[in-house]
Amino acid sequence: MILGKVIGHVVSTMKLPVFNGYKILMVRPVDDSGKSQGEVFLALDTVQSGAGDIVLVIDEGNSSRLIINNSMAPVRTLIVGIVDSIERIDREGLFN
Amino acid sequence: MILGKVIGHVVSTMKLPVFNGYKILMVRPVDDSGKSQGEVFLALDTVQSGAGDIVLVIDEGNSSRLIINNSMAPVRTLIVGIVDSIERIDREGLFN
Amino acid sequence: MILGKVIGHVVSTMKLPVFNGYKILMVRPVDDSGKSQGEVFLALDTVQSGAGDIVLVIDEGNSSRLIINNSMAPVRTLIVGIVDSIERIDREGLFN
Amino acid sequence: MILGKVIGHVVSTMKLPVFNGYKILMVRPVDDSGKSQGEVFLALDTVQSGAGDIVLVIDEGNSSRLIINNSMAPVRTLIVGIVDSIERIDREGLFN
Amino acid sequence: MILGKVIGHVVSTMKLPVFNGYKILMVRPVDDSGKSQGEVFLALDTVQSGAGDIVLVIDEGNSSRLIINNSMAPVRTLIVGIVDSIERIDREGLFN
Repeated sequence: MILGKVIGHVVSTMKLPVFNGYKILMVRPVDDSGKSQGEVFLALDTVQSGAGDIVLVIDEGNSSRLIINNSMAPVRTLIVGIVDSIERIDREGLFN
Repeated sequence: MILGKVIGHVVSTMKLPVFNGYKILMVRPVDDSGKSQGEVFLALDTVQSGAGDIVLVIDEGNSSRLIINNSMAPVRTLIVGIVDSIERIDREGLFN
Repeated sequence: MILGKVIGHVVSTMKLPVFNGYKILMVRPVDDSGKSQGEVFLALDTVQSGAGDIVLVIDEGNSSRLIINNSMAPVRTLIVGIVDSIERIDREGLFN
Repeated sequence: MILGKVIGHVVSTMKLPVFNGYKILMVRPVDDSGKSQGEVFLALDTVQSGAGDIVLVIDEGNSSRLIINNSMAPVRTLIVGIVDSIERIDREGLFN
Repeated sequence: MILGKVIGHVVSTMKLPVFNGYKILMVRPVDDSGKSQGEVFLALDTVQSGAGDIVLVIDEGNSSRLIINNSMAPVRTLIVGIVDSIERIDREGLFN
């Protein structure tokens, strides 16, 4: 599971029927200070998130299909929570 | 799921029989502004996409096999939609 | 399985019910000398780890669901151990 | 699925019995112009590929086990085709 | 499957009971010339490998659980062979 920021959505009329009714959001992965890390990807929303939200993103096929209740849906990436706040504690060094 | 751009296809006569009849497309992953990100890969097409198209790509084994209706096919990456347009909203910062 | 350092946690009220009761920790992957490597991610805790701990992290969907005993939970990343110490032996070269 | 180039093979006498009889090839991932991208990995061959060949590589556990017909084999990466040629079309920009 | 070099091991008393009896080794991924590539990770040993060995590493959940004969073990990464030697052939260019 990673933190991401919703930065937009994708419009696609020509697509597999299984995606009809789902909003396909663009997500930019961010680290604990909100800095961009890794590559932009697409995710289906399950918690009514919107542009600008910091979200919890799960990337796992079997559970994603269970959540949207469609055992054949070609989905792997879902937005499963909206983040209120982040508590950071980051001491330097391996064992201190 | 990610955004990609179809940049060509691969010709292979010596391959597993399960791939016969499928077009193997080369896809370059792109971010929300169409800039290349990550590494070029291969995908099977399910929506009649062609060179130059911006496409939705799923990378998950179980669902890919279901979609092409072959439980033994060694596939993991499918093109499942063609993108019409992208709406981008990208405010800077973690919580604003 | 990788080594990580717990650097904080995430507060989210709007999330899938399946996450209620779980603490969502932020983890920074580290190498054998405690240097940061790769990207910050989120994990559920199973061993009472806390901020600053060096932990063992597993990233695999099926086993993660078994461990938290919920076959539908959209989890893939769990903290499964706390590291006491690391023994390093690193000779240079391929075969010496 | 990705493109790779066979660059050698690995000799290992001390290994799990399930690998006996298989040639373990070293593969360097390449992009559409044959330039190296990503990290060198190992794959089992299913199409009689050899050193210098540009090959199709699948990286997925369940289908790999089906192909080599061993439901317990710890394999995930197979060479499934040899590439004859690559047709490239790469227009710049997101929608042109 | 990749090549790795065993560079140490991890001591952890506070961990899931399923790991008792297993040695958790630190592995540095290497390329065909023994140069480090990618990120250090942890793996369970199945072939009596030790520090300094060049090893074959499999990273796949279902088969790893089968090999250690525990369908609930949260493992994904196993050392499955020790490398004797590597034969390298690396001609430049895409098709020559």
